[in-house]
Amino acid sequence: MTTVSDRYDPGPQIAQVGSINIGTRDIEKSLWFFRDLLGMEEVQRDGNVAYLRCYQEFGHHSLVLTEQDDAIVNAFSFRTRRPEDVELFYNDLQAQEIEAVEIPAGHEAGRGTAVRFLLPGGDHPFELYYDIDKPEADPSLRSRLPSNSSRRRGLGVRRIDHFNIQTAPGRINQAEQWVRDNLGFKRREFAKFADSNTIMASWMSVTAQMHDLAIVANFEEKSAQMHHLAFNLESFSDSLAAADILRDLDVSYGAGPGKHGIGQAMYLYVHDPGSDHRVELYSGGYLIFDPDWDPLEWKAVDFPEGLTWYGDPIDTTPGNRGRDTTGSAPLYLSRQLA
Amino acid sequence: MTTVSDRYDPGPQIAQVGSINIGTRDIEKSLWFFRDLLGMEEVQRDGNVAYLRCYQEFGHHSLVLTEQDDAIVNAFSFRTRRPEDVELFYNDLQAQEIEAVEIPAGHEAGRGTAVRFLLPGGDHPFELYYDIDKPEADPSLRSRLPSNSSRRRGLGVRRIDHFNIQTAPGRINQAEQWVRDNLGFKRREFAKFADSNTIMASWMSVTAQMHDLAIVANFEEKSAQMHHLAFNLESFSDSLAAADILRDLDVSYGAGPGKHGIGQAMYLYVHDPGSDHRVELYSGGYLIFDPDWDPLEWKAVDFPEGLTWYGDPIDTTPGNRGRDTTGSAPLYLSRQLA
Amino acid sequence: MTTVSDRYDPGPQIAQVGSINIGTRDIEKSLWFFRDLLGMEEVQRDGNVAYLRCYQEFGHHSLVLTEQDDAIVNAFSFRTRRPEDVELFYNDLQAQEIEAVEIPAGHEAGRGTAVRFLLPGGDHPFELYYDIDKPEADPSLRSRLPSNSSRRRGLGVRRIDHFNIQTAPGRINQAEQWVRDNLGFKRREFAKFADSNTIMASWMSVTAQMHDLAIVANFEEKSAQMHHLAFNLESFSDSLAAADILRDLDVSYGAGPGKHGIGQAMYLYVHDPGSDHRVELYSGGYLIFDPDWDPLEWKAVDFPEGLTWYGDPIDTTPGNRGRDTTGSAPLYLSRQLA
Amino acid sequence: MTTVSDRYDPGPQIAQVGSINIGTRDIEKSLWFFRDLLGMEEVQRDGNVAYLRCYQEFGHHSLVLTEQDDAIVNAFSFRTRRPEDVELFYNDLQAQEIEAVEIPAGHEAGRGTAVRFLLPGGDHPFELYYDIDKPEADPSLRSRLPSNSSRRRGLGVRRIDHFNIQTAPGRINQAEQWVRDNLGFKRREFAKFADSNTIMASWMSVTAQMHDLAIVANFEEKSAQMHHLAFNLESFSDSLAAADILRDLDVSYGAGPGKHGIGQAMYLYVHDPGSDHRVELYSGGYLIFDPDWDPLEWKAVDFPEGLTWYGDPIDTTPGNRGRDTTGSAPLYLSRQLA
Repeated sequence: MTTVSDRYDPGPQIAQVGSINIGTRDIEKSLWFFRDLLGMEEVQRDGNVAYLRCYQEFGHHSLVLTEQDDAIVNAFSFRTRRPEDVELFYNDLQAQEIEAVEIPAGHEAGRGTAVRFLLPGGDHPFELYYDIDKPEADPSLRSRLPSNSSRRRGLGVRRIDHFNIQTAPGRINQAEQWVRDNLGFKRREFAKFADSNTIMASWMSVTAQMHDLAIVANFEEKSAQMHHLAFNLESFSDSLAAADILRDLDVSYGAGPGKHGIGQAMYLYVHDPGSDHRVELYSGGYLIFDPDWDPLEWKAVDFPEGLTWYGDPIDTTPGNRGRDTTGSAPLYLSRQLA
Repeated sequence: MTTVSDRYDPGPQIAQVGSINIGTRDIEKSLWFFRDLLGMEEVQRDGNVAYLRCYQEFGHHSLVLTEQDDAIVNAFSFRTRRPEDVELFYNDLQAQEIEAVEIPAGHEAGRGTAVRFLLPGGDHPFELYYDIDKPEADPSLRSRLPSNSSRRRGLGVRRIDHFNIQTAPGRINQAEQWVRDNLGFKRREFAKFADSNTIMASWMSVTAQMHDLAIVANFEEKSAQMHHLAFNLESFSDSLAAADILRDLDVSYGAGPGKHGIGQAMYLYVHDPGSDHRVELYSGGYLIFDPDWDPLEWKAVDFPEGLTWYGDPIDTTPGNRGRDTTGSAPLYLSRQLA
Repeated sequence: MTTVSDRYDPGPQIAQVGSINIGTRDIEKSLWFFRDLLGMEEVQRDGNVAYLRCYQEFGHHSLVLTEQDDAIVNAFSFRTRRPEDVELFYNDLQAQEIEAVEIPAGHEAGRGTAVRFLLPGGDHPFELYYDIDKPEADPSLRSRLPSNSSRRRGLGVRRIDHFNIQTAPGRINQAEQWVRDNLGFKRREFAKFADSNTIMASWMSVTAQMHDLAIVANFEEKSAQMHHLAFNLESFSDSLAAADILRDLDVSYGAGPGKHGIGQAMYLYVHDPGSDHRVELYSGGYLIFDPDWDPLEWKAVDFPEGLTWYGDPIDTTPGNRGRDTTGSAPLYLSRQLA
Repeated sequence: MTTVSDRYDPGPQIAQVGSINIGTRDIEKSLWFFRDLLGMEEVQRDGNVAYLRCYQEFGHHSLVLTEQDDAIVNAFSFRTRRPEDVELFYNDLQAQEIEAVEIPAGHEAGRGTAVRFLLPGGDHPFELYYDIDKPEADPSLRSRLPSNSSRRRGLGVRRIDHFNIQTAPGRINQAEQWVRDNLGFKRREFAKFADSNTIMASWMSVTAQMHDLAIVANFEEKSAQMHHLAFNLESFSDSLAAADILRDLDVSYGAGPGKHGIGQAMYLYVHDPGSDHRVELYSGGYLIFDPDWDPLEWKAVDFPEGLTWYGDPIDTTPGNRGRDTTGSAPLYLSRQLA
């Protein structure tokens, strides 16, 4: 007999965005950007690899900077809900004949065993793990608030927020469906190409956030690239202060501040001068607690105000860099499996 | 053989704070406060009962105003994760020999079947339900943003946020333990009385919020009363604008604005002139996505800055009304079961 | 012997922007906009003329709405520093053989005698006055703060801020020089056309504000038109809240929010649906107290970020209406002298 | 014959708050506070004297830190409107038989000749000057905005705002009257002791600010002390961010943030750890352009909300340090004349 419990066994689940490992051609410039300007804590440095976290994060790192020739994304890492989920996911991948690699504990400092695979339909390198050290910050940085791992500093990024990844239109539906079916992401808002069943963009989450992961179509030859990586700021006003300061520095400013209609959050894009990756400083937005949330669809006619409800418009032309008109945004292929 | 899945069957679960049903001696005054001043939508009016929701809520109501002699709380309602959870919870209560009442669909307009019981250790009337209508707002109020059920108006309350309830010190540990064991709330931050194992206050959630429900000890003769009901504002700046406007109106202002160390959110307390219930306008705060969150304990010496990290101090003397020194806060007993 | 005092006799002076009298084809729509939406107080209504003021203004009005066929500007009014300055200015105009008209007290309700003339080089109708009634607000609107004439309401405009007027490039230098020489405005920031001595735009003030009056060149056939009229909001955050609310209403939104590099203030443009005049909601900005302020010049290469340091870009194409792409901005000729 | 011009000859005038010279027992700690934390620019260092300015100030300095045994105020300096006003003021002082000292150019680096005297009725050392160098910031600090002398940094103080000085009740009326009659300050808001003609506090300005100088009565034995020195922040939100950061540092926090009813500005008090002087971070407030402003009187019954309209209450008990309960505020006598 099938019991209620059996029917609703959740299986392995993703709990949260964990961290990202990006290549940078100049780790000192990237450290200036993420640590000195954005205000992250440099938790550990091992030669050409630096581990950083935000002031409200207790895990060992949410950002890994790896100095290397190609500024590709080495891994998008998600944390599972339970320790055993890592192995359960591995089994699921095996059952689907998706190539997966077990990564030993310590491969990223402070992290336990992980499983690595390429997103079907998207080719992005995903890693799933549960165990992560929770080191105390250096005494000189500690906060008196127990919910802060260190004091707020710099532009005040408080936690990693989400990833926005891109893939080819011909495979995006497969990728989006796969993360929903297999990783438990729920579609929250989405848009399709006009007169088509092809997804143009989908915002999905495993948490109460409107999105932890967005998958967006692009028409570039190379399908797997990251559009941006986002960190969370405490308030809209922090976004304004950040914009003011960033505009006055010699960094490649993108677009913003503005408020997305999609998600009702404020965006501000800027490029890390070491890696050239696009980073979003993100604040506000609504939360979803309804268990029966009906995904919101944006029609083409309304899509521009989905991107920009108010503020600096986002130009979705491939390669667009917003206010930095000195060049086009490079393709950031994601690293392959091996 | 016990499988992993069996071990982790979640059983019935609470998804979110649903709504509150409060008595008011003057429903027109309460409507002025919640609808005209705070900006809620009056979805339905049935004689002496009014149903309201906030501009980012799609369910039929998050607040029920019932005109009656005693301004007690008629029900604290929570929504379950799955339709069948309502019955599963009922079975659990029966198994524990806790008296529970089935409330038929439509008892609160737009809502399906609910189960009602008194919180063990707290005597607060809790109701659990899943089904809720999702009516469209009147065309004159609709928003162009699909994630808003109506346009932002008034002081801009966007959703119900949490309940803060009180019980006697001799029974608080029982109440707090019960909601954790049986409703799936997780303890996020807490404080105990000095040199005691008795909980002074516990902030708990079933969502990524730091708390959906707080249980606080009090020393009044009558143990079951609500301290406050909270609605969420979009930003700290909205809290400041609300404070400015509220201070200039003939309403009973409580305390705030200030920032709690506990939860890092901004508070502002004001009393509904119809019911005299204390309402918190709440903004900001950190979110919890870590599946292994370790509850944060506040020691007595630090507790004052847990209450007020900065801003208008909160006076926890029983009956204190903050800036309104014209009287003491009355006891708001919660309605009993039948 | 010439004494120090003689050398520095200031002569007649302008103290502040006083009010504007605009034509509107639909006074009820304009009242909805300025009174109900922006939050102004309707101080007096005389048939087809309405007098309004902001919540931190004590004078009888800062805005006059006159229902008439042409939505032109009837008068830009400035208040003098001393009662006798009105006559002194009149004498000065006579001495320069500039046609001037004396307007009797009560021509605008609550206002004393004024002198009216057309700006040399610009043809805009200027009026200078000193006496103005300071009526108390209706008791239902009064604030408990003595520095507010009424309570903050609606989008919270607190005072008239500045005028931005346009004239033909061939005459702009004359107009700008005239207001500096004769009305005591000081040039604070400015730009010239490339390789030219012709002023493109000049921001000038008689107060500590960066500008009370801007004169900008345009190439339209008709030279004298107003670009916008500005009201002041208390904070940047009020600008964001206003943008959110305005985007969700059926009003013709212009551009913003964004921060000007020029003046470092936040802008938000919207059109009054009754008159179609462009109204700026303006917040922040730096103040000038230095008695020897050196006007800041913007070179053409930097001018775009003078207009928009961050946020929604301003399109200076004639007729541009920002986000409202349904039509072009009409020319609003200023009313002639008689 | 007396002409209009004669009657209104303004005579020598004060244009603005210029700078303050304070003693500090530990200049390195004070530099950490004002330069590294508040974000001021260290323009010049001459042995035990440091000169600093804010990011929107062009003059050589607005703060002088002098390392010395007594952390007294060495000088409150105001800048005159015209070069010759310095000598004209000197003549006026001579005519009134008030002892005045001429201070040569360069006594404070970058500054021209000044005249020094003790405020009649208050004994505070005032200095008046006009000439001040306007050095460019070091290239590494320069802003791309021409209205900023350097980039915004730290907590973002953008200019010196006002002084709040105290004197004995028996002499305060004399002091307040003297600055109004002789320095051109206008009374903007004020309070008197109940049933008395004695001023309790008076807020006065020579600019559009509600106050550049406040004089407040105290009952301490020593009459002449500074209550605080204020710097201006760009927005209320900057005040909140500053409060958050200051609360988490080992500095002596005072009171705030809160909004004064008087002036409608936000306050936040903190003590410089080098000198222990109280510093206010001040934002917002209304501006006065009305030439016939009628001073607003606060009655005793309303005075508490004049101090605190909302937010952290100000305790006016002598010696009170707000949240820092470790000691009482020391008396900061102002330096005498010679």
